Amino acid sequence: MINVSETLRNLDSSLGGNISLINDYRDFFREKINLDKEYGLKLQALSKKHISKAEKTGNSSKFDHVWLEILRENENLGGRFLEYSKKEKHQVNKALKAAVGKLEALRKKQQVFSVQVYHEKDQFFRNCDKLRTIYQTKCLSLDAARQKYEKCPDDKQMPKLKRLWQNEVAFYNNAKNDYFLSIEKANTFLSKLENEGLMGICQIYKNIFEDRNKEVKRIFKKSCELNKDIFEVSKSESVSENIDSMDCTIDINKLYESVKVEISVSITAPLFVSEEKFDDQPGLVLDTRSKTYLVNRLIKDQEIFKAKTKNIEFKQNELEGLFKLLSTYTDNPQLGNIDSVQDVILYV
Amino acid sequence: MINVSETLRNLDSSLGGNISLINDYRDFFREKINLDKEYGLKLQALSKKHISKAEKTGNSSKFDHVWLEILRENENLGGRFLEYSKKEKHQVNKALKAAVGKLEALRKKQQVFSVQVYHEKDQFFRNCDKLRTIYQTKCLSLDAARQKYEKCPDDKQMPKLKRLWQNEVAFYNNAKNDYFLSIEKANTFLSKLENEGLMGICQIYKNIFEDRNKEVKRIFKKSCELNKDIFEVSKSESVSENIDSMDCTIDINKLYESVKVEISVSITAPLFVSEEKFDDQPGLVLDTRSKTYLVNRLIKDQEIFKAKTKNIEFKQNELEGLFKLLSTYTDNPQLGNIDSVQDVILYV
Repeated sequence: MINVSETLRNLDSSLGGNISLINDYRDFFREKINLDKEYGLKLQALSKKHISKAEKTGNSSKFDHVWLEILRENENLGGRFLEYSKKEKHQVNKALKAAVGKLEALRKKQQVFSVQVYHEKDQFFRNCDKLRTIYQTKCLSLDAARQKYEKCPDDKQMPKLKRLWQNEVAFYNNAKNDYFLSIEKANTFLSKLENEGLMGICQIYKNIFEDRNKEVKRIFKKSCELNKDIFEVSKSESVSENIDSMDCTIDINKLYESVKVEISVSITAPLFVSEEKFDDQPGLVLDTRSKTYLVNRLIKDQEIFKAKTKNIEFKQNELEGLFKLLSTYTDNPQLGNIDSVQDVILYV
Repeated sequence: MINVSETLRNLDSSLGGNISLINDYRDFFREKINLDKEYGLKLQALSKKHISKAEKTGNSSKFDHVWLEILRENENLGGRFLEYSKKEKHQVNKALKAAVGKLEALRKKQQVFSVQVYHEKDQFFRNCDKLRTIYQTKCLSLDAARQKYEKCPDDKQMPKLKRLWQNEVAFYNNAKNDYFLSIEKANTFLSKLENEGLMGICQIYKNIFEDRNKEVKRIFKKSCELNKDIFEVSKSESVSENIDSMDCTIDINKLYESVKVEISVSITAPLFVSEEKFDDQPGLVLDTRSKTYLVNRLIKDQEIFKAKTKNIEFKQNELEGLFKLLSTYTDNPQLGNIDSVQDVILYV
């Protein structure tokens, strides 16, 4: 058995770890950007001071001309450092901040989703308890009706009491079937969650992690490109090559294996508990009256299922259209904002 | 007429201006070197802090590996800035300091030389004064001897007084010749100084300026080369090219024209002043006794001249040898110290 809540918590903490790493990158770049800016400002001020001095004292010889040119090159280098730190700020640090913001928003949505899953599970479990109470009540009513009939001193009253007793039998059967089915549903929900649902959630996390990896890779690469504009980096080409060779894909099975928490026994799946005197076994009562009741319930549930399926189909169509839009925007970024489409996708 | 002292002062102040410009270069580079060192130290410390954090928190994924590599590249860049500032300190700033030191030493030697020139001129002028006083004394003695002879009442004493008077004439002639020659010598010295000596001094300054230019050009070029090791400088290649095209030669005539100070009348050249009663004209007395005296003087002077010429020849041979050594050391710097040879050359 899989401990769903622990597994979801592991997924969430793994995402948290990823966000925290990006914040480490941001801390480093923030300080580095300040160093670059400080260096640029100081070199510019120093050069300007000496340019104005050289312009005053120089005698327009070739040497003075070259000296002024050296100073202007240094002033220019200071300016290039300022430009570089500005680009780093926008194209590296603000991009990392945006990535963190996006991941935090996704994490919140995933946390809300986890709460919803629990809420749904609780509803199934509460339903079991409610129907068990009805089943217990019906057991008592049935017992009372049977005793009333058996202890009846008056033959005239007997048929009427027998009919009432048989009605109680039907009520008791339906209550037992409802209670049994609620337990089946709760266990099916848990089993689906363990076997398919968690994998689906892993798929969502896989997509988030891959998006995060691609964005970090893009930003690392951008940082390398910016360095090339200002530093002599021919000796550190290997970093750029290693960034190029970074694999952003996540193996979903490895992800699942790394987060899933297995336990020996399910401590949460509900079991059918018979009323003491009745010694009922789990299973459906299938006499004619009970069958009719079950058929009617099936028709009702099918209607709910149809409505939900329709809603899912509608949302799937909507998603397909949005993914097409996303892919168009990804190919031609000038057509529209990718992030806003992604937000809508997540909302759907 | 050229005002020698003003002209020499202009040459000295031109050299002073050149030294002052190099000190400006040094001021700039000293501050820039500090900026480079500061940046290197801070970037290294920042990278080290984040490397130790990344090593603690990383989970040895490809991403953690690349992130560590990025941090180590930044640590390395910090180290390169420290290395760069060290090289700038030694190959740029200390080289400029050495150039200034050398120029200051040359300037002092030139100042000492100027003082010597003045001292020599003063000696010539003092000699004129001294010999004029002797000439005046001899005039008085001659006058007294003549009067003694003319007013002599005793015929027996006459031949003795005439011999004494004729002796006084010979003393007077020698004194007048000595006085006249001292004036000729003083004026020849001044004229040689104005016409040839100043040009010779300009030649020495030309050599100093050219050496200074070559050294500054070499240091500017070195600074450009060091920049190439750390900065992306493909956009500022023009500075390096302009340094290459710097002409280090000095046009001696232009230098002379720029420093020489002309005045309408010489205020220092001495003139022959006759004793009042004698109304002597400048020129040599060339009777037999005077000629003998002059020939003896000439022989003495020729001996002094020979000794001086020998000394000059010896020093010229010494210099030739030293210049050969200098050229050998310049081609193979490991063989010996160029500067110490240059110092010996200047001393000689």
